[in-house]
Amino acid sequence: MHIRDARDDDWAAIWPFFRTITAAGETYTYPRDIDSGTARATWMLRAPGHTVVAVDGDGTVLGSAKAGPNHMGPASHIATASFMVAPEAAGRGVGRALGEYVLSWAKGEGYRAMQFNAVVQSNVRAVALWKSLGFKVIGTLPEGYRLPDGSYTGLHIMHRVL
Amino acid sequence: MHIRDARDDDWAAIWPFFRTITAAGETYTYPRDIDSGTARATWMLRAPGHTVVAVDGDGTVLGSAKAGPNHMGPASHIATASFMVAPEAAGRGVGRALGEYVLSWAKGEGYRAMQFNAVVQSNVRAVALWKSLGFKVIGTLPEGYRLPDGSYTGLHIMHRVL
Repeated sequence: MHIRDARDDDWAAIWPFFRTITAAGETYTYPRDIDSGTARATWMLRAPGHTVVAVDGDGTVLGSAKAGPNHMGPASHIATASFMVAPEAAGRGVGRALGEYVLSWAKGEGYRAMQFNAVVQSNVRAVALWKSLGFKVIGTLPEGYRLPDGSYTGLHIMHRVL
Repeated sequence: MHIRDARDDDWAAIWPFFRTITAAGETYTYPRDIDSGTARATWMLRAPGHTVVAVDGDGTVLGSAKAGPNHMGPASHIATASFMVAPEAAGRGVGRALGEYVLSWAKGEGYRAMQFNAVVQSNVRAVALWKSLGFKVIGTLPEGYRLPDGSYTGLHIMHRVL
């Protein structure tokens, strides 16, 4: 596996797992019925944003990440990022590799910290991964996320100095 | 003073204080040199967002607020909002009136809570106002905001159930 900048034509490989993950409605704050065009516009960033893919030895896209400033102007020194891993590639360390890559990229770009705005509290694997990469929960939106069964879980705000 | 929906032609009255407040670089996460077109696009929202103005008896615009969903999809039940008051109208309760109006609007729209993502910690008047309206600081981004003198202050995330 290696990580490289995403190209426009990678979207065809990203969209199937983006759609699957979003439609499940358990981990992301995108509309569950988001269309490809809207999803592409939100995921495939231009500078100062940055989108990458993790690819297998044969070129198969296993996951993707996007990163950029979390706010503008006087708060643009803190980055944010989002990650998606194809369900069929779970358990291979793709999320961790993307996380490490994005942290390194953000530090190289001069960001002073990274913030995640909406980590679903019940997504315990993601929360554990980010904690293992040095992130701390600095606040939790109570009942910030509505699960498919109609129950609510929190949204963590996570932060790590770079 | 009363509060009404913003019309397109209100921008001419909002932009002067938007520019002054943004250029000061002490309270907002907009670029200090933001241009009118970009500012207008970020402030004058279409549904499901909502933008209002507070106007004096003679029609003078004293301040403005915008509100809408803070996230999409399974997290779209939490609103967010932003407020600007013309410096020459400070101390007249315009911010409080706009805050009360927006809270009422969001509750009426069915939102379950309101979240502010970036309240500058050194903006003690704003922090005190939101606390007096029932908001709590649920987390603070350390050094999340760079002040004009180059020093850093925190960014509070504030939250209130509706």
